[in-house]
Amino acid sequence: MKPDKILLDHGSGGKISHGLTADLLLPVFDNPALAMLDDGATLNVLGGRIAFSTDTYVVDPIFFPGGGIGDLAINGTVNDVAMCGATPLYLSVGMIIEEGFPMADLERVVAQMGRAAKLAAVTVVTGDTKVVPKGAADKIFINTAGIGIIPGNVNVSGANARSGDVVILSGTMADHGMTILTQRQGLVFESNLKSDSAPLNHMVADILRTGCDIHVLRDPTRGGVGTTLNEISGKSNIGIRIYEDRLPVKPAVTGICELLGFDPLYVANEGKLLAFVPADQADRVLTAIQRSPYGEDACIIGETVDEHPGRVFMKTRIGGERIVDMLTGEQLPRIC
Amino acid sequence: MKPDKILLDHGSGGKISHGLTADLLLPVFDNPALAMLDDGATLNVLGGRIAFSTDTYVVDPIFFPGGGIGDLAINGTVNDVAMCGATPLYLSVGMIIEEGFPMADLERVVAQMGRAAKLAAVTVVTGDTKVVPKGAADKIFINTAGIGIIPGNVNVSGANARSGDVVILSGTMADHGMTILTQRQGLVFESNLKSDSAPLNHMVADILRTGCDIHVLRDPTRGGVGTTLNEISGKSNIGIRIYEDRLPVKPAVTGICELLGFDPLYVANEGKLLAFVPADQADRVLTAIQRSPYGEDACIIGETVDEHPGRVFMKTRIGGERIVDMLTGEQLPRIC
Repeated sequence: MKPDKILLDHGSGGKISHGLTADLLLPVFDNPALAMLDDGATLNVLGGRIAFSTDTYVVDPIFFPGGGIGDLAINGTVNDVAMCGATPLYLSVGMIIEEGFPMADLERVVAQMGRAAKLAAVTVVTGDTKVVPKGAADKIFINTAGIGIIPGNVNVSGANARSGDVVILSGTMADHGMTILTQRQGLVFESNLKSDSAPLNHMVADILRTGCDIHVLRDPTRGGVGTTLNEISGKSNIGIRIYEDRLPVKPAVTGICELLGFDPLYVANEGKLLAFVPADQADRVLTAIQRSPYGEDACIIGETVDEHPGRVFMKTRIGGERIVDMLTGEQLPRIC
Repeated sequence: MKPDKILLDHGSGGKISHGLTADLLLPVFDNPALAMLDDGATLNVLGGRIAFSTDTYVVDPIFFPGGGIGDLAINGTVNDVAMCGATPLYLSVGMIIEEGFPMADLERVVAQMGRAAKLAAVTVVTGDTKVVPKGAADKIFINTAGIGIIPGNVNVSGANARSGDVVILSGTMADHGMTILTQRQGLVFESNLKSDSAPLNHMVADILRTGCDIHVLRDPTRGGVGTTLNEISGKSNIGIRIYEDRLPVKPAVTGICELLGFDPLYVANEGKLLAFVPADQADRVLTAIQRSPYGEDACIIGETVDEHPGRVFMKTRIGGERIVDMLTGEQLPRIC
């Protein structure tokens, strides 16, 4: 039954939030660019193609090991534009600030944004600031939208996975999500967990520069690798098999996930990408990714399979096979 | 002294919010497109020019006579893109929804967005939905960003007002702001106040189609006509003189403004524009505006003057002259 109120699950990135998009938003804003449901829209303008994407950042806490809401807001949209195969160029920044928010914190957030924009080589060209009365918002929320140019020969989409592709993951899973969770819960571990918040556009440029036939680029943020692979398998109507023993997770993250009962497959990343490429070109792409400062742990985690189109399977460590389903609802609100 | 916390005034559109932009944001995101501080950025891409703009909508209440946050979020960004002289084409929508928000209200907001997008002939091509726990946001906030194409011969900017220009205002002042205020305060008047929320892109197209030499187009939203004229006089380094007896205000709005102590010159509009054009072409532009469904009350409210560059003056009804300054702080939080 359809709930009559918005639940945290509606913002999870899982089944319920996909349902909201499909049932409520797509019918109203009916158009082919939106219906692709890629990380951004691909638009034909001025005789070329641009990518256009947006994301709103509501992460709590706003500062955490490895970054903060400022760099997250820049990197997240840079990455969404890059996942369209585009070179991100320009960003907008829209801030909602709670009355009473410390000026020193705002300066820190803006400085993070400035450094992140410089690192990603993008320019913040337009913006808007709203202040709401105390209690009407929690600290600060930031929306960014981004524009990039798609080179003529690039054609990546979550719908383009093909038979014979392998699946490359650019590094370890769940670093961002578990960092936020442990910070928020006041859990202090010996480990040095930190967010993987990073711009991936230079890595994408290196991947495209190989000249290989790149089918899919996606960054597994909210909902994690498990959810993103489900989106790709559904949109490309193909099966995907991954291997549990190949999935890269830092030992400290594995430990905390086990302790708290989280599956790293579904925990958010903010500096990782999935690439689908033909098997015979995988080594070249993998090498390009591993050379990137954010890709040293990259590896092949699986491949497309012709059986069971639209489903994701995992070969477990003990040799079995299980379905990797899309989660229904929310594991971690305000994770990004 | 610089405050150590964010005040409502920082989001007012007045002097204090301009100070925040100038002191904190411009130095960090230093670039010529942002420094123009127009309603949107003008960007050279793919051999042409696009306009790119963003705005976040936090209006309270979310539904009001004449519209709601949904159509406001579409119209506001459509208008900001149009004020760059562009034809708005594509929008992004980023929503922050409070847990527990009624689904029926969300459906109503989305339906408003859909109708407004259709009316403005723009396409929502990408989006993002975040849900935050109850109490972390008040009901719903919506960010939109927009992209449009600027025709080759168009060159409008708040910095382009010139000696010999007249100032056209496309209709009555303060309808939106006073509607929100009376709704919020539970003030019920006999009058039928309603917001002027409307898309102005078709009006702008009609203006540009006259072939006249349009110098400035701006929509006087937050801060009203008084603030927007101050921005233009400052950026163009020219004096502006307006005439009190020419300023169009609906009688009901005048009455409520007087009752509550508001100056309609500083109250927000959401479906009006200011155009600066050479005096000898003003009649053609005025006629084009008056033919628009949202421009029937358009009139010439003043002109540029060479004395006192950067200042705005008003000839009062009783024949005196007073400075129209930019307000320091906030009259009405969450007005848009």
